[in-house]
Amino acid sequence: MTTQNTQDRLQDSLLQVTHLLEKHRLVETMLHNQANPKQELIESLVHRQHLAELQAMLRRLHPADVAYILEALPLDQRLLIWQQVQAQRGGEILLEVSDAVRESLLEGLSRNELLAVVQQIDTDDLPDVAEQVPADILQEVSQSLNVRERRWLQSSLAYPRDAVGHLMSKGLLTIRDHSSLETVLQELRKREELPDHTDKLFVVDTRHVLKGVLPLHTLLLADPQAQVAEIMAANVVSFTPEEKASDAALAFERYDLVSAPVVDTRGRLVGRLTVDVVMDFIREEAEEEALQRAGLRGEEDLFASVWDSARNRWLWLSINMVTALIASRVIGLFEDTIVRIVALATLMPIVAGIGGNTGNQTTALVIRGLALGQINLGNTGHLLLKELGVSLLNGAVWGSVMGLFAFLLYQSVSMSVVMAAAMLLNLTVAALVGITVPLVLYKLGRDPALGSSVLLTFTTDSMGFLIFLGLATLFLL
Amino acid sequence: MTTQNTQDRLQDSLLQVTHLLEKHRLVETMLHNQANPKQELIESLVHRQHLAELQAMLRRLHPADVAYILEALPLDQRLLIWQQVQAQRGGEILLEVSDAVRESLLEGLSRNELLAVVQQIDTDDLPDVAEQVPADILQEVSQSLNVRERRWLQSSLAYPRDAVGHLMSKGLLTIRDHSSLETVLQELRKREELPDHTDKLFVVDTRHVLKGVLPLHTLLLADPQAQVAEIMAANVVSFTPEEKASDAALAFERYDLVSAPVVDTRGRLVGRLTVDVVMDFIREEAEEEALQRAGLRGEEDLFASVWDSARNRWLWLSINMVTALIASRVIGLFEDTIVRIVALATLMPIVAGIGGNTGNQTTALVIRGLALGQINLGNTGHLLLKELGVSLLNGAVWGSVMGLFAFLLYQSVSMSVVMAAAMLLNLTVAALVGITVPLVLYKLGRDPALGSSVLLTFTTDSMGFLIFLGLATLFLL
Repeated sequence: MTTQNTQDRLQDSLLQVTHLLEKHRLVETMLHNQANPKQELIESLVHRQHLAELQAMLRRLHPADVAYILEALPLDQRLLIWQQVQAQRGGEILLEVSDAVRESLLEGLSRNELLAVVQQIDTDDLPDVAEQVPADILQEVSQSLNVRERRWLQSSLAYPRDAVGHLMSKGLLTIRDHSSLETVLQELRKREELPDHTDKLFVVDTRHVLKGVLPLHTLLLADPQAQVAEIMAANVVSFTPEEKASDAALAFERYDLVSAPVVDTRGRLVGRLTVDVVMDFIREEAEEEALQRAGLRGEEDLFASVWDSARNRWLWLSINMVTALIASRVIGLFEDTIVRIVALATLMPIVAGIGGNTGNQTTALVIRGLALGQINLGNTGHLLLKELGVSLLNGAVWGSVMGLFAFLLYQSVSMSVVMAAAMLLNLTVAALVGITVPLVLYKLGRDPALGSSVLLTFTTDSMGFLIFLGLATLFLL
Repeated sequence: MTTQNTQDRLQDSLLQVTHLLEKHRLVETMLHNQANPKQELIESLVHRQHLAELQAMLRRLHPADVAYILEALPLDQRLLIWQQVQAQRGGEILLEVSDAVRESLLEGLSRNELLAVVQQIDTDDLPDVAEQVPADILQEVSQSLNVRERRWLQSSLAYPRDAVGHLMSKGLLTIRDHSSLETVLQELRKREELPDHTDKLFVVDTRHVLKGVLPLHTLLLADPQAQVAEIMAANVVSFTPEEKASDAALAFERYDLVSAPVVDTRGRLVGRLTVDVVMDFIREEAEEEALQRAGLRGEEDLFASVWDSARNRWLWLSINMVTALIASRVIGLFEDTIVRIVALATLMPIVAGIGGNTGNQTTALVIRGLALGQINLGNTGHLLLKELGVSLLNGAVWGSVMGLFAFLLYQSVSMSVVMAAAMLLNLTVAALVGITVPLVLYKLGRDPALGSSVLLTFTTDSMGFLIFLGLATLFLL
């Protein structure tokens, strides 16, 4: 038993792998650079020894750890390691890497290799990788399944990625309510193992309708003579396959669940949701949101090619470019004013920038409230009033500070009043837009995290320039 | 058994509560507005009936659901609900609300109420609320604990909030390796219940050193005659109390853990980490990061007072104001240039803005890579080269687009060349800064999510103005 920090241990493994790869590369370079056949033989032996060492090391690692190493390696080294592991453990490793990295791993495989790797994956897990697997391969693998498994796969794939139906698994243990605990225990003992994360058994009637659950804890502690129906928990948190996974995730957190039944509209048990899948979902959702907010579409492989990376960012850049151009044209309307009072050109980015900053604060709060289900029709009015209050207060305070600053720089009272007024107005605009944009996107069924910041910055920039230069034109010329 | 969506059900509860509160408020207003004693009596009866209805409804709700309702209600309504529940269930509800909301709930309590509420909380959970509880109350509660619990509390509180030691619980079941499964089962049956999330028992020797774990699944399925030592899992993922909780969270996700032992440097079992706590930690960390990136210090209560909210945002605004002022002074250096070519004033925000956008994309990727432990000394070089490549490609493509745009607007070839060159240069600066800033903050032990965006925007703004206006001064005048 080692007490070394798990993350340090992983880093060590990564370093060792990199080290072995380095040696491997050195030998390979030597092999290329000289033609002495005897020397070549020796080198090739050394070479093989390094590979054997590498393979032994990879074998000792958990699939999730191999996945970690693959993600942290630049593309060429990543593919070298992948070659070593894909034939035996490719399936389980594929499940652990991010979508973008999975794509990079599958790209290089031949049709037969692809088929072999995908066939290693359990039917339950196939939906997780389905997006990166070519349709014909998926079709062929699906043909090789038995009828029940094929039907399961098809129905899973039919649910959207963020629905409970996509994430649920079929491995679950059902019992009948009129059995005694003793019988249940005996039945269990006949099995080799229980499905992972089994913390409760599902009690169903003849039509497979869920009646309750029997926690393993109860099974262990209660009198073996007791009937399941007497001691089962009848009040169960359950989900439907159509339910949003993010709602299910909130329920897992709230009620501290390890596993939960998924039932159809008639109450029949159709699957099981487990905490490991939910936790992965939460993490992926949080990461995706963080990346999307910066305009990256979902997961970008840290070591994607320059070309792939650049394209991944173009949509966002082109949208931003259009909004920047529009804001630029707003300034263009006031060219005459700027020529006459050039100080305006130095001050205008402040009004626009601070507006964007305060608006983003409001938006971040609203997006979080929406994600946690804390914002609803009943309280948006309250929220709007509060945020307007905050922006008026901030506008008054920071507008005065900026007005003072403008006065110190340009010794003009009227300029400083225009500055202060523009700050106050733009901060108010920022609060209004910062609340309405995410709410409207949410109502339209769009992801508020994705579009809010562009729309917000666009408004606070354009309006900032318009308000400031407009006021200046009216009162300073 | 209901098949209603869990989140919808919660929303319904919230609406019902709001409805009852509304009725309550109406009656209260009527009571205030008239002095007829008989009428008053009737109203007060109606009033009491509403309260009874409300209390009955709250009693039926899980503490986490009450917490949800408290978080979604504006301050005055929130405190009304809190009054109804605090005496009986305050402790468990306090554990479920966010830090900011907890503060708002505790603020209004008298010393005795505070003491009563905090005493309801299990020692294991006290560290979670300790920050919001006045020190003397915590001291008094701690005095009422027995020696072992008090020592546990003190050691838990001594660990930082983001350390495993702060999150671990003491409720765990230990067994000895020479027992038979039968004995273990008998011992278990003597208990009323097992600690939550017990999916494995911990096998220790006489000195309480961890030797392995016995999963409940094994206990259920294996031959009762077998010895613990024969069938326990000796290779266990364990943590130390000093370890960072975020690293432990990654391990929980990677190895799909439900619970894991925490051991000291000598391998002795000191506590247990469970998936529910880890999941809460992941969620809180993600949310905090999202809010911090927008410059909100940690959790802000959606319905905090205007004053509290405004103050919560001042640090960030004042920092941004300073950087905006500096950028503004950079423009000030080129006032003469702008007076002669006013078009520069309209184009300069584009160069600065797009630089900020691309830099933020790089930063978001780097922050994610750091959080997942995928970035290390060995691959930062690769990453830097890749991001520079992306920025050169993007700079060439979008620089040309912007150059063309500048030409169309102002019919000047030299202006369009200056625009394109400035874009290319500022995008390169953005990539360099976008990588180095989060890496340096991380090396310094600071949170890269917190400071990166200010520093980045500051650089891309100032450098954008400097490069564009500088090139214009050199080549266009």
